[in-house]
Amino acid sequence: MRIAIDAMGGDHAPAEIVKGAVQAAAEWKDTVIVLVGHRERLEPHLDGQMDANLEIRHASEQIGPDEEPVRAVRRKKDSSMVVAGKMVREGEADAMISAGNTGALMTTGLLVVGRIEGIERPGLAPMLPTADNQGMLALDLGANMDAKPEHLLQYALMGSIYRSSVHGIAKPRVGLLNVGTEAAKGNELTKAAYELLEQAPIHFVGNVESRDVLQRACDVLVCDGFAGNILLKAMEGTASMVMGALKEEFTRNWRTKLAAAIMMPGLRGLRAKMDYKEHGGAPLLGVNGLVIKGHGSSDARAVKNAVRQARIALQGQLIRSIKAEISGK
Amino acid sequence: MRIAIDAMGGDHAPAEIVKGAVQAAAEWKDTVIVLVGHRERLEPHLDGQMDANLEIRHASEQIGPDEEPVRAVRRKKDSSMVVAGKMVREGEADAMISAGNTGALMTTGLLVVGRIEGIERPGLAPMLPTADNQGMLALDLGANMDAKPEHLLQYALMGSIYRSSVHGIAKPRVGLLNVGTEAAKGNELTKAAYELLEQAPIHFVGNVESRDVLQRACDVLVCDGFAGNILLKAMEGTASMVMGALKEEFTRNWRTKLAAAIMMPGLRGLRAKMDYKEHGGAPLLGVNGLVIKGHGSSDARAVKNAVRQARIALQGQLIRSIKAEISGK
Repeated sequence: MRIAIDAMGGDHAPAEIVKGAVQAAAEWKDTVIVLVGHRERLEPHLDGQMDANLEIRHASEQIGPDEEPVRAVRRKKDSSMVVAGKMVREGEADAMISAGNTGALMTTGLLVVGRIEGIERPGLAPMLPTADNQGMLALDLGANMDAKPEHLLQYALMGSIYRSSVHGIAKPRVGLLNVGTEAAKGNELTKAAYELLEQAPIHFVGNVESRDVLQRACDVLVCDGFAGNILLKAMEGTASMVMGALKEEFTRNWRTKLAAAIMMPGLRGLRAKMDYKEHGGAPLLGVNGLVIKGHGSSDARAVKNAVRQARIALQGQLIRSIKAEISGK
Repeated sequence: MRIAIDAMGGDHAPAEIVKGAVQAAAEWKDTVIVLVGHRERLEPHLDGQMDANLEIRHASEQIGPDEEPVRAVRRKKDSSMVVAGKMVREGEADAMISAGNTGALMTTGLLVVGRIEGIERPGLAPMLPTADNQGMLALDLGANMDAKPEHLLQYALMGSIYRSSVHGIAKPRVGLLNVGTEAAKGNELTKAAYELLEQAPIHFVGNVESRDVLQRACDVLVCDGFAGNILLKAMEGTASMVMGALKEEFTRNWRTKLAAAIMMPGLRGLRAKMDYKEHGGAPLLGVNGLVIKGHGSSDARAVKNAVRQARIALQGQLIRSIKAEISGK
């Protein structure tokens, strides 16, 4: 299999991206890694370590983190991200990975790679942290701000297939993000979606409140992109504030510093638990090829983990399964 | 002034409610406290301590925490909550306080007390916790699931008036809960509301992301009831999970227990910081009288604090100011 990596996207590009790609190529000899980016800027980081299964595809441009997505994708046809997208569309790569501009990557998925027939709106599906470290797949997290009930149904189907084919969960529990657990709760969108989800060929466990996400009330959480963003950032902000306040308490005097030294290993584990970057890249589900969004701050390890994730999804025939499910409707 | 208290609503009713009312009557001699509820069930808790400014208004029924709100309010016309609402409507009380069924209280506000002319949807406005302990007023938190842009504008106006008249903030910063800080971000609702808020006679500071709530990015946060509920419960759930995990780390062995003993005062402060119940009751803004929702777990101190809050709002002519602002549109 061939995996294209946008070598110019992310806070630590290209150095860490190249490093992760080199590690992935060394680990999986059956996989060809194609680094897409400016050849002259990539080669110094390679240091002559070109394995037979590591290639460079030159792309003269790159899309910056603050560029307006649609315009950037339309104009920069030779950017590393768009070129990687074209490779997936043309069958030159089986998957693409990028830690670059999220909006631009969603646009690349939509306009360059293209949607799966029957899918109206692709959804971005990161893993949210849970207390037991198992994580919860949530979609949509920001691609589709004004979702319709039918979109939420498609998210449920795609998320369910992803969790069984990539994570091996036999019967993923699908929950609907809502303001209460009773069936009649919610706004017009969730009330209508509830009825569709009840009829769908999934293991629907009903409404899930945002306070129960960390308790892993389900394996796949379905929501519109607006509510999903509010949820994710509220969790991030609260965890980071509590950890910050804790740090302040621990550095107050020599006695609290002693306490901090004792507690350090446990606190590190807690911080890692709350870090959703630990859970790998987020697939953009519903596009006609495997597109994985790495976190903007991805380092070499994160890039290698995204390759691992892509390999599992490809081996599990993820896209083919989604197509079969959707066209079977 | 006269303040009616629903003595039968809340997890600790009637004992703690009566206790709080007794304390309030003792503290503020210029205020008549009317305990509304079943006389025979209230009297044992009074223990003969009837101050001259403490009265009982008998109501034979009560609305339970799990009753369907609209049906309960319509049928139980002699429930403590509905009777308190009628007293406000008839001018027999200047304000009402209840720690009972939230949905029923919003319904009582809407159907019994009635809306202010020109207000389409009243909004429930609790204080969210912030890292600096100042808190942020957020509305709507659950009364109006499918808000229109005009509703959000009214929330902004009412929230702004509340913060200046009750909390003495000269120029409250009003923010719009959204998925990014740029003006063009969001769903159809927030994009349209943004334009209205820019034109409004308030100090609008633009979009606020959910991760910046704890940093007190504004003094009044405007949102629809669905998004507000997702935000609040995500913050609650995350804080409670982190504190729970911390407790687990601290009880691991004798060394961590020693660390816990050292850290105890600081941790108590942190827990209090994250507890939005500390910030008093939530006004239901937009109804034609002062209606304050106490937290379901309100104890005597919370009840007394709600009375304090009601007194300040009444002294500040809150309802009159809101009417002037809205009818001036």
